[in-house]
Amino acid sequence: MSEKDFIHGGDIYTEGLLKGRALIDFSSNINPKGVPESFKKHINEGFQMIERYPDIKYRSLKKDLIYYNEKYFNLKLRSEDIVLGNGASEIIDMILSYLKTVVLPVPSFSEYGLSIEKWGGNVIYSKLNEDMDYDYLDILEKLKEADGLVMGNPNNPNGGVIEEEKFISILDYCENNGKIVVIDEAFIEMNGYDGSLITLIENYKSLFIIRALTKFFGVPGIRMGYGITRNKKVLKYIIERQNPWNINSFAELCTHYVLYDEEYIKDSIKWVEEEREYFTGELSKIPIIDKVYKTRANYCLCKLKDMKDEELYNYCLDKGVLIRRASNFKGLDNKYVRFAIKSRELNNILLNILKDIPNKKVLEK
Amino acid sequence: MSEKDFIHGGDIYTEGLLKGRALIDFSSNINPKGVPESFKKHINEGFQMIERYPDIKYRSLKKDLIYYNEKYFNLKLRSEDIVLGNGASEIIDMILSYLKTVVLPVPSFSEYGLSIEKWGGNVIYSKLNEDMDYDYLDILEKLKEADGLVMGNPNNPNGGVIEEEKFISILDYCENNGKIVVIDEAFIEMNGYDGSLITLIENYKSLFIIRALTKFFGVPGIRMGYGITRNKKVLKYIIERQNPWNINSFAELCTHYVLYDEEYIKDSIKWVEEEREYFTGELSKIPIIDKVYKTRANYCLCKLKDMKDEELYNYCLDKGVLIRRASNFKGLDNKYVRFAIKSRELNNILLNILKDIPNKKVLEK
Repeated sequence: MSEKDFIHGGDIYTEGLLKGRALIDFSSNINPKGVPESFKKHINEGFQMIERYPDIKYRSLKKDLIYYNEKYFNLKLRSEDIVLGNGASEIIDMILSYLKTVVLPVPSFSEYGLSIEKWGGNVIYSKLNEDMDYDYLDILEKLKEADGLVMGNPNNPNGGVIEEEKFISILDYCENNGKIVVIDEAFIEMNGYDGSLITLIENYKSLFIIRALTKFFGVPGIRMGYGITRNKKVLKYIIERQNPWNINSFAELCTHYVLYDEEYIKDSIKWVEEEREYFTGELSKIPIIDKVYKTRANYCLCKLKDMKDEELYNYCLDKGVLIRRASNFKGLDNKYVRFAIKSRELNNILLNILKDIPNKKVLEK
Repeated sequence: MSEKDFIHGGDIYTEGLLKGRALIDFSSNINPKGVPESFKKHINEGFQMIERYPDIKYRSLKKDLIYYNEKYFNLKLRSEDIVLGNGASEIIDMILSYLKTVVLPVPSFSEYGLSIEKWGGNVIYSKLNEDMDYDYLDILEKLKEADGLVMGNPNNPNGGVIEEEKFISILDYCENNGKIVVIDEAFIEMNGYDGSLITLIENYKSLFIIRALTKFFGVPGIRMGYGITRNKKVLKYIIERQNPWNINSFAELCTHYVLYDEEYIKDSIKWVEEEREYFTGELSKIPIIDKVYKTRANYCLCKLKDMKDEELYNYCLDKGVLIRRASNFKGLDNKYVRFAIKSRELNNILLNILKDIPNKKVLEK
């Protein structure tokens, strides 16, 4: 398996699908409820849509996003506040290409660093503290040398959310000094819509929020992300660089139905709340696990006790379960793994596998 | 309607769909056979696919493209010869961003010029001759000051194909002088697979071919294009700049079925051959039309006699038919319109509308 597969969690193809092998995928952080029925049952409308080019202004799609952000985030968006992306990846890449020197708390989603480097930007790292919380003072200090910042909310791989009280001084500083604050909220729905910073865009032109349908609505293959800001200069920069028709028609259709699917939304929030509590609670009792980090997302970072990530990866793979080694996240080493939170049934399969591995120290006695 | 709508033929939304008005769309060059049934009937497989991220290497998708290009173009591609795009737009944009000064025959697809300008490149125009054929000598001469060239094959808006005999000296010159030749073959299937320059990639590293599923397979909304070249430097440049997962899963699925749909392919080629002959023949008898340009594609550029494109546009719109004004193609003025070739039934509707417009000169007598 290549480094590129590894970085992007592509093991499901290399280890699973392309070998015709069924694996339970705990490496990818997707809502296990799967593709919403509300989209599936209207799929035929997509055939009419793909027969023509999408509306280059995506007027209808933007209306759906405006509805959703008003209903769940109490924010009245205007269509000109929105930039659409072929997945959040495009938005991440575009906004980070705008910045020359970026403060990057680590560990974090590897695409941030890759995009900054790709465009010749400089990265200033700020390490998360030992509980995997943001070090707000360190970030503020390092921003003096940077023209922007990118943070996950919740962050990947640990699932921690931004504490608004501590964060606001960073935002004030950036607002007053022409710096850009990029907040990736691709997983925010997993926290039951709590903790979003989105309403702050009304007062902070420095703020740029990234969203996606991918995780919460279980559709990573549909490619639909968006950015929200009131910063006209940033919006102009991105829109001028984008290609026309960057959102495919099935993504438009999917958005149109899933954002209005109140049952799916309610059930998913209930699932993630319950399973997160159960799963992290059980994980903390497992002998080979040294530490379970606090998470508000649908995944969980763990530090292993006397075991390397690769050992556990291979052990689980042998049992038909794919996990995410976390050693390639900047700032982590080979003691870390990340587990997705899935359904109770699947979570129990993984928990039982993990429980059966004796702690090496115990073994060696 | 804004200039951006106009450039991209977005009138179907502004004038039709968003007003709830049914229009026959002769402005967009899409196969009227519509979305292939071979794709539609397998749509459920797409729901499984979108539940996970696409394979970052798109191994299966590339195999389908290799099969297709071998079967219909007699070319044995290697997967490393292919770059995938979120529509041909992405590929056009990427390859043109690589070039600093580009020879651009005009009229041609407006995206070429927009992409070159967007990336700060310079354009050297080469006007098509009065029959809308490429001026090969002029192109060759102007290449001395440029580092590349982009040509449509067939070209848009006129539908002319490249004459390989005359073109080869251009290609030799570019090959020997490190220049890049970009050939957009998005409409090549409309010429019954004839006239493609694709096999020349084996001998010319300077050659970069652009393809898409869009037009021939009737799926502009699916967003699937690709580039083919043996130029490693160009491939590296593009791949390093692309975002991961740029092809959505429905586009993968669609490709997987339509490229193997021999019946659809055969029927479509038969349709375009028959209707092109019929439609252009009938158009040339119409009083208000001064000249019908030779086309090998599924659209037809016409010069009007004593009538402005906007007049004809409004006249047709009033009758429920949308046509493409061609005055915003560089090198054309308000005497030009472009008609898509559609089914016999629809073609006759347009022809009857056009026949009923008396020539102004006749009227004025």
